[in-house]
Amino acid sequence: MAYAPRVRRDAQVTKQRIFEAATAEFAAHGIAGARVDRIAAAACANKQLIYAYFLSKQDLFTAVVEDRVKRFQDNVAFDPEKLPEFAVGAYDFFVANPDIVRLGSWHALEEGQEAFPVDVIKRSWGERVRAIARAQREGKVDATLKASHLLMLILAIARAWVVATPEIKAAVSDNRRFQRQAVYEATRRLVNDA
Amino acid sequence: MAYAPRVRRDAQVTKQRIFEAATAEFAAHGIAGARVDRIAAAACANKQLIYAYFLSKQDLFTAVVEDRVKRFQDNVAFDPEKLPEFAVGAYDFFVANPDIVRLGSWHALEEGQEAFPVDVIKRSWGERVRAIARAQREGKVDATLKASHLLMLILAIARAWVVATPEIKAAVSDNRRFQRQAVYEATRRLVNDA
Repeated sequence: MAYAPRVRRDAQVTKQRIFEAATAEFAAHGIAGARVDRIAAAACANKQLIYAYFLSKQDLFTAVVEDRVKRFQDNVAFDPEKLPEFAVGAYDFFVANPDIVRLGSWHALEEGQEAFPVDVIKRSWGERVRAIARAQREGKVDATLKASHLLMLILAIARAWVVATPEIKAAVSDNRRFQRQAVYEATRRLVNDA
Repeated sequence: MAYAPRVRRDAQVTKQRIFEAATAEFAAHGIAGARVDRIAAAACANKQLIYAYFLSKQDLFTAVVEDRVKRFQDNVAFDPEKLPEFAVGAYDFFVANPDIVRLGSWHALEEGQEAFPVDVIKRSWGERVRAIARAQREGKVDATLKASHLLMLILAIARAWVVATPEIKAAVSDNRRFQRQAVYEATRRLVNDA
């Protein structure tokens, strides 16, 4: 009678192993470059099982991106009245988890991605823009820049060092403390009327 | 006697055709995803000729990136005392030439790219950072942020809309005038003491 739960638990463990192998594969190679064979080999699972769990390479990619966006939301505090702190939190998260930045870059680059929208990105973007707009209406955040522009620019600032090309990474100091200060100061200036 | 120049001119035309086909192929698929067969087909040339002219896929990619960076330099005026104008010029160039942004993103993403530095990126980055640092020493640009951080952030701001994921592109207004204003205002705040 203990057989069925055991099988179910093993299945859960295998599924998680596939998911982690897929995350590493997609972060390294993108969607087009990812090979389901390599994911199967890294997860000690067979290809058929991957399709049974996740339907297609594209669905597996979407699941991986959703997982990473949720981790970002769970780990980076967002308060529209504390946007410089949010920017630094995002910077810290991106530095510690460059795979989320790489997955986002691949997602933006791969052709036809507009046909596979990741719901959690849409939802989280909309919620945050509305929260910033509300804080602007209440006079708590400078309203010169539209809320969506502010969020766009803050995320670009937070991610700048992680997405730099190798030549630029090699040329700039990788002193994290200075980079954090720059992210904080840039965002503070962005949200304060100057 | 007119034969040799004619052959040379034809060779130049073919080389240019290969170069343009390669630019489109790399912008669409990146380095790993690019296929020399497809470049050959699009350029009506044969694969052997591509290797004869450009040695390897990696060398061809480097040549394409160098060409695009030079176009950026030739078309976007850079004056360290007019950084908001530079940011808007860069934004306009990126919007009109998304392939340069895509090539940069692929270059940053592909593994092992640190082993293939593009000299023109290194040189252009160094020159601009030194020019900003000089303007800061002369008191013409606020020196709170290091010159390299300023340049990093300005380029991130200028490129933000072009590199956004499809969900975010769909959610934000694509009104170019508002985006330009946001780029100008964000950079103005960045370089002015607030």
